[in-house]
Amino acid sequence: MSKFWSPFVKDLVPYVPGEQPKLAKLVKLNTNENPYGPSPKVLEAIQAELSDSLRLYPDPNADRLKQTVAGYYGVRPSQVFVGNGSDEVLAHAFHAFFQHSLPLLFPDVTYSFYPVYCGLYGIPFETVALDEQFQIRVEDYARPNGGIIFPNPNAPTGCLLPLEAIERLLLANPDSVVLVDEAYVDFGGESAIALVERYPNLLVAQTLSKSRSLAGLRVGLAIGHEDLIEALERVKNSFNSYPLDRLAQVGAVASFEDRAYFERTCKAVIDSRERLVAELRGMGFEVLPSAANFIFARHPQHDAATLAAALREDGVIVRHFKQARIAQFLRISIGTEEQNQALLDALRPRL
Amino acid sequence: MSKFWSPFVKDLVPYVPGEQPKLAKLVKLNTNENPYGPSPKVLEAIQAELSDSLRLYPDPNADRLKQTVAGYYGVRPSQVFVGNGSDEVLAHAFHAFFQHSLPLLFPDVTYSFYPVYCGLYGIPFETVALDEQFQIRVEDYARPNGGIIFPNPNAPTGCLLPLEAIERLLLANPDSVVLVDEAYVDFGGESAIALVERYPNLLVAQTLSKSRSLAGLRVGLAIGHEDLIEALERVKNSFNSYPLDRLAQVGAVASFEDRAYFERTCKAVIDSRERLVAELRGMGFEVLPSAANFIFARHPQHDAATLAAALREDGVIVRHFKQARIAQFLRISIGTEEQNQALLDALRPRL
Repeated sequence: MSKFWSPFVKDLVPYVPGEQPKLAKLVKLNTNENPYGPSPKVLEAIQAELSDSLRLYPDPNADRLKQTVAGYYGVRPSQVFVGNGSDEVLAHAFHAFFQHSLPLLFPDVTYSFYPVYCGLYGIPFETVALDEQFQIRVEDYARPNGGIIFPNPNAPTGCLLPLEAIERLLLANPDSVVLVDEAYVDFGGESAIALVERYPNLLVAQTLSKSRSLAGLRVGLAIGHEDLIEALERVKNSFNSYPLDRLAQVGAVASFEDRAYFERTCKAVIDSRERLVAELRGMGFEVLPSAANFIFARHPQHDAATLAAALREDGVIVRHFKQARIAQFLRISIGTEEQNQALLDALRPRL
Repeated sequence: MSKFWSPFVKDLVPYVPGEQPKLAKLVKLNTNENPYGPSPKVLEAIQAELSDSLRLYPDPNADRLKQTVAGYYGVRPSQVFVGNGSDEVLAHAFHAFFQHSLPLLFPDVTYSFYPVYCGLYGIPFETVALDEQFQIRVEDYARPNGGIIFPNPNAPTGCLLPLEAIERLLLANPDSVVLVDEAYVDFGGESAIALVERYPNLLVAQTLSKSRSLAGLRVGLAIGHEDLIEALERVKNSFNSYPLDRLAQVGAVASFEDRAYFERTCKAVIDSRERLVAELRGMGFEVLPSAANFIFARHPQHDAATLAAALREDGVIVRHFKQARIAQFLRISIGTEEQNQALLDALRPRL
């Protein structure tokens, strides 16, 4: 602590991202990256932009990207917000919508960045327990609140909430912003973007880091009613005029334009997930039903932290959370077939 | 205004960046970009990184970039903070250091983003008038404050405050963070980084957007005491773990490694500036002494807004601020010799 700090800084508990080891040769199944590279058209588009034009500022409004996303999802460009990864988009959304006296609600087991944002912006929050099967029960959110947020599919469980349940939640909370964080939706969920036209309190966030294999490029987005997007634009334009660099903007456009590649790689990940789940269940693991590019699994006879440490010795990194209710689970990102096999080979002798 | 907004959003007055026209063929002297492209080594480094590795998150701590910057400036990596353009770095600094009950102080004529950040974070501020020659007088900052910030050289004036004056300011304000925003320092100033070892209340911000020709890549940095850097890291890690994408990190490293190119292009800009100043003075303009890659000029017989509009008709864009004290000035970025000549050619018949 330093006398120079703003008072809130002393109590900040920052988010801890999954490890980014600098060693090669690891089977890295810990941060939900896509095992396949981005569309070759993304690399071509960035290549074409890579020139002396880097001396010039990017389009502060990323108009072409917004138009592309709007066309892709059948909404208007004025309903699209973009930012430096969905983490930045979420940060601005917390600031723009959740600074109220009533608490923000989110699940007790969820993306661990949510309470961090609350610390950053002084937002009161309450967690709502998932049910015994680690599912969100929308009835439990029927209490006074200043907003609701959850990932769908949820992280780190991978469990999906169906659209009809989201609709019930929206109807029951007409005075609150409901933010559905769809980082993983392309691996088996149905997007709530279909509902934004009817629910002015719905904001949907997505990222290009997972299904579009662009974690290294940092692009995220949000879609909702123009009034919500206007608030995000005001906050963004009071923070940083140009969060998306020139290369990220053209790369993101190209990604949305190559629908065939996107669908092919998503399907490959889903197919691998189903095979991996079957194998793990065969080895005695309990695996939650996943609609994401990761699975959440526990073994009734083996301690999760011990398993994670053992896997690491064999060069396989998965994620383990030392946290109530889920301390016996491992979160395993879906890799290539070879990576998944390496995981199974490393697990087998430990069980 | 929407009932869903956090209350502060309604009063936000966002920053308005200089226009980024989508037409080609304009002589664009309005946003202080460098007329020369980045070092070819920057493009090579990005090229080498442009691969399937984009599927992986970047290093959240940008360690290699911090080491490179630290080596360049002779400080420790733990004294270096990096972000998505110096605008993001400044935003985090406002949040981390200036949220106090005493007002932040900055010049009445300065970078117009400063009051915007204050609106974003609820920071009280007072402006301190520049003197009659548009210079900062450090004696005027001897009043109770929760922090001090100014660009050096100042924007949009281009005027430089010498290091000994900055040192007096630091000594007179030992309990406040003094943030020196050196966006333009490489065009004729002396960096206050030389003082960070002795003044724990000094934070220096820089950008790669101007002297390093990378406005399109979005990289900024701050250098100061470890205690100040720790606060920035806490805020950053509570906002977005990965603000710098993979391409930006390697490009920024390459820029610092190519010192010869950097020095050559800075010198070219400075030489052009001196020639342009002489020409404009010859045409009757009063030009403030500039240590930046832009100049601030007024003509005693010609209205600035009228001149700016006339130049625009000829395809030359400069920046004009409708603001007290400076409404008769034009801010003109230094272009190539050809661009500067186009400006002079467009001006001459209008005078």
